[in-house]
Amino acid sequence: MALKSPEAFIESLRDDRRIHMNGKWIEDVTTAPRLKEAARHSALTYQMGRDPDLKNYVVSTCPETGEEIAAFYRMPQTAGDLLARRDAIYQVSRYGGGVIPFVKEIGTDAIFALRMITPQVDRKFGTNYAERIKAYHHYAQANDLALAGAVTDPKGDRNKKPHEQENPEVFLRVVEKREDGIVVEGAKCHITSSPVSNELVVLPTRNLGAEDSEYAVAFAIPANAPGITMIPMHEHHCNEPVDRPLSTHHPIVHAMIIFDHVFIPWERVFLCGEWEFSGSLVLSFASWHRFTGLCYKGPVAELFLGSAALMADFNGVAKTSNVRNKLQELAMYIESIGVYSRMACYEHQIVEGIAMPNSLHCNVGKYLFAENYHTMIKYVQEITGGIGGTCPSFADYQAPELHEKLERYLCGRSEISTEARIRVIKLVRDLTASCDAGGHMFGTIHGDGTLEAQRMMVLRDFDMRPAIALARRAAGLDE
Amino acid sequence: MALKSPEAFIESLRDDRRIHMNGKWIEDVTTAPRLKEAARHSALTYQMGRDPDLKNYVVSTCPETGEEIAAFYRMPQTAGDLLARRDAIYQVSRYGGGVIPFVKEIGTDAIFALRMITPQVDRKFGTNYAERIKAYHHYAQANDLALAGAVTDPKGDRNKKPHEQENPEVFLRVVEKREDGIVVEGAKCHITSSPVSNELVVLPTRNLGAEDSEYAVAFAIPANAPGITMIPMHEHHCNEPVDRPLSTHHPIVHAMIIFDHVFIPWERVFLCGEWEFSGSLVLSFASWHRFTGLCYKGPVAELFLGSAALMADFNGVAKTSNVRNKLQELAMYIESIGVYSRMACYEHQIVEGIAMPNSLHCNVGKYLFAENYHTMIKYVQEITGGIGGTCPSFADYQAPELHEKLERYLCGRSEISTEARIRVIKLVRDLTASCDAGGHMFGTIHGDGTLEAQRMMVLRDFDMRPAIALARRAAGLDE
Amino acid sequence: MALKSPEAFIESLRDDRRIHMNGKWIEDVTTAPRLKEAARHSALTYQMGRDPDLKNYVVSTCPETGEEIAAFYRMPQTAGDLLARRDAIYQVSRYGGGVIPFVKEIGTDAIFALRMITPQVDRKFGTNYAERIKAYHHYAQANDLALAGAVTDPKGDRNKKPHEQENPEVFLRVVEKREDGIVVEGAKCHITSSPVSNELVVLPTRNLGAEDSEYAVAFAIPANAPGITMIPMHEHHCNEPVDRPLSTHHPIVHAMIIFDHVFIPWERVFLCGEWEFSGSLVLSFASWHRFTGLCYKGPVAELFLGSAALMADFNGVAKTSNVRNKLQELAMYIESIGVYSRMACYEHQIVEGIAMPNSLHCNVGKYLFAENYHTMIKYVQEITGGIGGTCPSFADYQAPELHEKLERYLCGRSEISTEARIRVIKLVRDLTASCDAGGHMFGTIHGDGTLEAQRMMVLRDFDMRPAIALARRAAGLDE
Amino acid sequence: MALKSPEAFIESLRDDRRIHMNGKWIEDVTTAPRLKEAARHSALTYQMGRDPDLKNYVVSTCPETGEEIAAFYRMPQTAGDLLARRDAIYQVSRYGGGVIPFVKEIGTDAIFALRMITPQVDRKFGTNYAERIKAYHHYAQANDLALAGAVTDPKGDRNKKPHEQENPEVFLRVVEKREDGIVVEGAKCHITSSPVSNELVVLPTRNLGAEDSEYAVAFAIPANAPGITMIPMHEHHCNEPVDRPLSTHHPIVHAMIIFDHVFIPWERVFLCGEWEFSGSLVLSFASWHRFTGLCYKGPVAELFLGSAALMADFNGVAKTSNVRNKLQELAMYIESIGVYSRMACYEHQIVEGIAMPNSLHCNVGKYLFAENYHTMIKYVQEITGGIGGTCPSFADYQAPELHEKLERYLCGRSEISTEARIRVIKLVRDLTASCDAGGHMFGTIHGDGTLEAQRMMVLRDFDMRPAIALARRAAGLDE
Repeated sequence: MALKSPEAFIESLRDDRRIHMNGKWIEDVTTAPRLKEAARHSALTYQMGRDPDLKNYVVSTCPETGEEIAAFYRMPQTAGDLLARRDAIYQVSRYGGGVIPFVKEIGTDAIFALRMITPQVDRKFGTNYAERIKAYHHYAQANDLALAGAVTDPKGDRNKKPHEQENPEVFLRVVEKREDGIVVEGAKCHITSSPVSNELVVLPTRNLGAEDSEYAVAFAIPANAPGITMIPMHEHHCNEPVDRPLSTHHPIVHAMIIFDHVFIPWERVFLCGEWEFSGSLVLSFASWHRFTGLCYKGPVAELFLGSAALMADFNGVAKTSNVRNKLQELAMYIESIGVYSRMACYEHQIVEGIAMPNSLHCNVGKYLFAENYHTMIKYVQEITGGIGGTCPSFADYQAPELHEKLERYLCGRSEISTEARIRVIKLVRDLTASCDAGGHMFGTIHGDGTLEAQRMMVLRDFDMRPAIALARRAAGLDE
Repeated sequence: MALKSPEAFIESLRDDRRIHMNGKWIEDVTTAPRLKEAARHSALTYQMGRDPDLKNYVVSTCPETGEEIAAFYRMPQTAGDLLARRDAIYQVSRYGGGVIPFVKEIGTDAIFALRMITPQVDRKFGTNYAERIKAYHHYAQANDLALAGAVTDPKGDRNKKPHEQENPEVFLRVVEKREDGIVVEGAKCHITSSPVSNELVVLPTRNLGAEDSEYAVAFAIPANAPGITMIPMHEHHCNEPVDRPLSTHHPIVHAMIIFDHVFIPWERVFLCGEWEFSGSLVLSFASWHRFTGLCYKGPVAELFLGSAALMADFNGVAKTSNVRNKLQELAMYIESIGVYSRMACYEHQIVEGIAMPNSLHCNVGKYLFAENYHTMIKYVQEITGGIGGTCPSFADYQAPELHEKLERYLCGRSEISTEARIRVIKLVRDLTASCDAGGHMFGTIHGDGTLEAQRMMVLRDFDMRPAIALARRAAGLDE
Repeated sequence: MALKSPEAFIESLRDDRRIHMNGKWIEDVTTAPRLKEAARHSALTYQMGRDPDLKNYVVSTCPETGEEIAAFYRMPQTAGDLLARRDAIYQVSRYGGGVIPFVKEIGTDAIFALRMITPQVDRKFGTNYAERIKAYHHYAQANDLALAGAVTDPKGDRNKKPHEQENPEVFLRVVEKREDGIVVEGAKCHITSSPVSNELVVLPTRNLGAEDSEYAVAFAIPANAPGITMIPMHEHHCNEPVDRPLSTHHPIVHAMIIFDHVFIPWERVFLCGEWEFSGSLVLSFASWHRFTGLCYKGPVAELFLGSAALMADFNGVAKTSNVRNKLQELAMYIESIGVYSRMACYEHQIVEGIAMPNSLHCNVGKYLFAENYHTMIKYVQEITGGIGGTCPSFADYQAPELHEKLERYLCGRSEISTEARIRVIKLVRDLTASCDAGGHMFGTIHGDGTLEAQRMMVLRDFDMRPAIALARRAAGLDE
Repeated sequence: MALKSPEAFIESLRDDRRIHMNGKWIEDVTTAPRLKEAARHSALTYQMGRDPDLKNYVVSTCPETGEEIAAFYRMPQTAGDLLARRDAIYQVSRYGGGVIPFVKEIGTDAIFALRMITPQVDRKFGTNYAERIKAYHHYAQANDLALAGAVTDPKGDRNKKPHEQENPEVFLRVVEKREDGIVVEGAKCHITSSPVSNELVVLPTRNLGAEDSEYAVAFAIPANAPGITMIPMHEHHCNEPVDRPLSTHHPIVHAMIIFDHVFIPWERVFLCGEWEFSGSLVLSFASWHRFTGLCYKGPVAELFLGSAALMADFNGVAKTSNVRNKLQELAMYIESIGVYSRMACYEHQIVEGIAMPNSLHCNVGKYLFAENYHTMIKYVQEITGGIGGTCPSFADYQAPELHEKLERYLCGRSEISTEARIRVIKLVRDLTASCDAGGHMFGTIHGDGTLEAQRMMVLRDFDMRPAIALARRAAGLDE
């Protein structure tokens, strides 16, 4: 099969999927407000493959089937492959105006994790999950599917394990095993781009014990399968596109997904009860996904620096030391993201023949990104000035009765057009201080696990033994 | 005259003022979307005076006229008076759901600054500004007016002085002096609550030299005076009130104001050409206004801590050490705001018989508040969890087809109702991650001057001599 | 009795106390290296009372006996008394070159804590501790004693309670009760100035349960009592005084004290077994002692700022923005210490007729001081330049063969003498990078409890209820 | 020639070099206190080559001469060569107890910088510096010399250029050109390990203009050449080795060096008047030296983490969350150093056939290391406890009269020997709070340029164009 066209992708979303938003059922995701723009934004990943200059970033070849495939589906086997995946994610995010068109990355993160872990499950239990996920991988890439990865359960009381919860389905679980497949019940939260994806790849969200074996379930399912309902967050969006240049054209939608007695045929089931592997599956997915996070956050950070540098220039203060200090901090932030993401490629780990991004580097890089995100927003807002919070709308700026005055009063230094200045102010507002910006804050902190989870992972992954040995020797303990 | 009723206040705003928002003229500020809510929020300051339990915070007596007046108008003469002003601002902010109903504070900040500086101008130049501002003060309090303070000019190229600008009116200036008054031309930016105020008190925005004497102008003017146009920022606001519990009921509007050949009669002019005093007037206003900032930011910080503590409790994680650390940081943030604001009262300065909040303490307190604001938002968002970014709307929660599922899946620990949890999630979203939250970020950083301005003020106000003397002695330089 | 002269104080230390340092018994604390200087430094607190200009800071009157006493002994009853105690500690520290002559402050912290808590013990148990501590207080002030406060036990395994420890005496305890008194066994650590104090006031170090009642013991004892051995930390001190201008003249010594079957007569016992009050006694002492900490740390911070400002000036870089930023941070650090210490006076608590410094403000202030101490050191070192680490000794500078060269090469800007520059470099070195500076780092972090302990105290003392009530109301939970 | 033995190295230092320390001339650097230990510490770099297990790290082959040489002399041509240099520096630092034996690294940093820049000078001016430095490089490696790099001038008034200074020789300059060579006059500061090096490689310290051409001079010279006087900082060092386990055995000495009419033959002159290349020479050296810094700081950070982890374990608090948080910060600190140093190898730059560590990565890595150094010290001290500041000396611990008591009272958890705990406490003290630790603080902040210099370099090296292009596109400016 061939790579899909953007038009065919959008058409593929008209499949009677059940979406409920802001109190109403959505008839057609490709025409409903906000979802429509999200669909178009996601389609950019398909469109980029048609651009002769950029195609090489997002089109690749499958080493297993020899087919031409979307680069995101290419399972990395070398540092070079990982760097190519990094480039694909980074470049498609730049193509998306700095915002990743998120429809293949997380799904393939989940596939790669399954391809790493299922051979181990099969060896222990004699199952044939490895073959199934390989077949599904080939099916998805051959059909150039948009795939969401669905991992996070609602969780209820954070102090309790799944089976201890008052409502046992605040973690998704298998409620029936049939000859032809399984039936699951539960929900998944914050599922990025799910309303504009073709299928969902579902994984457990945490390490599980024997008493929680029915929660150890992984599978794939079309987004319009019976029993699935998606409830996207309804963002505010009254303003004109020109007042929200980023979020209007490049929205990311996340949905809560309800699984109401959903049937999964066996060939789409990749784990079912083997709780012993839930932990390593979660960790493996986390490494892949934090790597994805590092790759696509680069352009976000570039938007921060770029818009701040433009505002500093337009306001005539680019050379003052306090502005330069902030630009330098923003530059170091980009450097940090780039260094850790590329380092995760150079110093990768090979597991089951797959080159996996270095877990420690991914963790630390993602932690640094998220830990400092709000401070970077502060720097951009500081450089922009109060006008970022109070600038008249573009419609006011263009109103004949006001235009001449606003043209004169909203100017920066004399070489810069007032319109250009207003446009960058609007970009900063949308980037750092809109509802979408607020959503990105939550996504940055909580996507791929909390800051606290990453702290724990650092201690888990970091080998302290050389440090302790050196200190013991220096203290004279081992002489 | 008596203290105004909330209804009379709202009626007073129907005065044909010229407001242009999002491309259209506003007919009636008391019925237009968003402005209507802003008017009602502002009216809370009048309503509180009718509440027998709270009246004592916001009603006081004028020491000069003996009249019963709104407490905000009371010119402080002692530490006790300053503490009472602090309480008035703090309590009315709590009454406003944590958001200050901002219609008398900034105006009186400007009046107090003028009452401190004009006697000095009069002594030097034989003018009679002190009498005029006193008369205006008494007029405003007698009519219980809502007053905005208008200070910040658009500024153009930040590297140039007013007269060096390409457009000389990017700073507001006197363009004509007439027998009966003056005519001004220019604009003011970010003028808080101006669309819902009765009058504007206008001050220069910076220290000026002799060549910029026409910019040294201060005056008062009704908001509906000919030539005045206000252009409020149009915030996004599609969601239902229940999804935005804070910003729907308690919005603050800021406007850019254009002064197109506006006439001011002499009795409302409080400075006109005496550039030598522009610097001290600006500094004096800054101290008053930073004090105001410290007083009303307490409840904002309390909302941060309170909502974080509720989320931690609802999610069942209130006892974990990382959550406790964040709650402790939030508590210290409130403590810092409270300590510096009260200290500014205890250790006040007396100028022209007026007790002025300690400038250094105000500066440092405001700096700490603004410097750490984004980090506090991060803590609240960390404790809340990813659901803060993706929670279904209340309408979805209540939709009959989904309600039972969402009731079960959006729960926290079992003793807490799901609805309560959703409501607090919505509060956090609105408080930290909505367009209004974004506006507050800009307001926090840039209101009352930038962080950089406050840094400079600290070095200016701080007496380094004891430290240098001690170091010289310790180094043996002065033996 | 009269206030003691500095000579009499030094003479009073020649009492055959048992001190072991660096492998040897010390014959006479007033002549042994380092201890001799410590004794002279401590004597400054007596000397200052003889200085007509400064006497008023350190001499006061006892409200109970009417005697003239050292100000440190004055039990505060009003905000003014607390401010006077603050001034006494602050000024004596400036008199000590920026380093507190620590011989009455901690002892009186302990006395005040005992005078607050013992009446409560007596009311519950019918004991007469209050009378005893009052008598001891009057005895100590009448004899103008130098008193150390001894609180911290060695602690052993930090996870275990006293009675659970392998060695039950890693917490000091009563091992025998006799008719005439008690016998204690154990040790106390980090006891500031104890080798140059006349007596020790001993308190328990932690909250205790019923099973640890034998550890609930408080008493006073002369430093030369049988069974007491003090082991001071031996600091490095090879350099000439001029190379270490601060630590040579103003050292603080801390000792570990071993109590080997030490007998205490009943009239000096202030708690013995009443474990129910150990917690409140500890907390009360902590508040007093954190207040003391805040008062004496002001001059330390002033030395930081003063020496940094001198170096910046001498090097010709006082106006550069990065230097100004650091000076501003140092100024804010001093401001923070001053504000919280004075606020603790203004907003004090009255307990048993005693005005006690506000516990929350003391905690937060001390936390901020300690939390930021290392960063302030960094700023001073950054401004000083690498020469702070490598400057030739003063003896080299003065060597005839080298002097002319070093005079020319170690210069700063031309108006400044090279010798003055070298002296300030030496001060910075001694203040931030010597062994004494290292000792002060540990003292800052761990004195008056760890940063972690202060974090816990903040959560304990801070009233979250108003914040939670406001958030509940804003979320619509309590309508 | 063969690689030198440690004994031969030490013998080579007995060459009548002129060293003045603490007011006296040093007769023999190999027997004088402190310098003797510094010589032995430096000799470790020779000794390691004799260890069969470690030899491969520090012995290599010259690609130009085919000789067996010390690895530090190997001029990198590939990423692998750079990684090998990194390993050599890292491993020899671990061999030095965590402290680098600093006698070849900086000298070769200077040689590599000269080998990169001199070909450019020669091409422009027809000089033959490239040949000279190559010959010197081969000479130095063939004789396995210990080389110090001498760069920093005293600088006088930091606001003035060299020729503007009151004393024109506060920057070292050429005062005479003769047929056989040049004569220089001036001084160099903070010259690491110079008292225990064989030769000095001297570079200019800053970018120079035409009017400062006589300051544009680079050369090599034996440490005992006529006219050279070295003045090392005299560190305090009274304690017994066991109380200072690190600094006794592994001291680093820095000296100020005076050049009093020192003659340099032409074949040792590598730049003389070509001011146009001073800037690039300085930058090139800076990159090499920051890379060196990153490589040897890893073991320092490991000592921090290792000693903190041991203390946490010994005290029984390794599992508490606040301790774990600090250990995690320390681990991330090591990770940061390692990642940036290795990344500088992977993403190197090729200049004149030499693989040069990536300048941006080196800069950022070094900045992060230095910026956070004091905070890491704080964490180690927090975990250690107050005993780090007050622990009795080892001699006291071993004194028969005290031993039994101290054995019991200085214990940690019961499985740990008291002696082991004391030894680690002493290590922490020496590592973070001794005079040597203070010297390292200055070295960390100011070595390889100040934090401010690194900030400027980041802005200089970082390519902002992609960020600005992305922001312009997102704002709709370039459509």
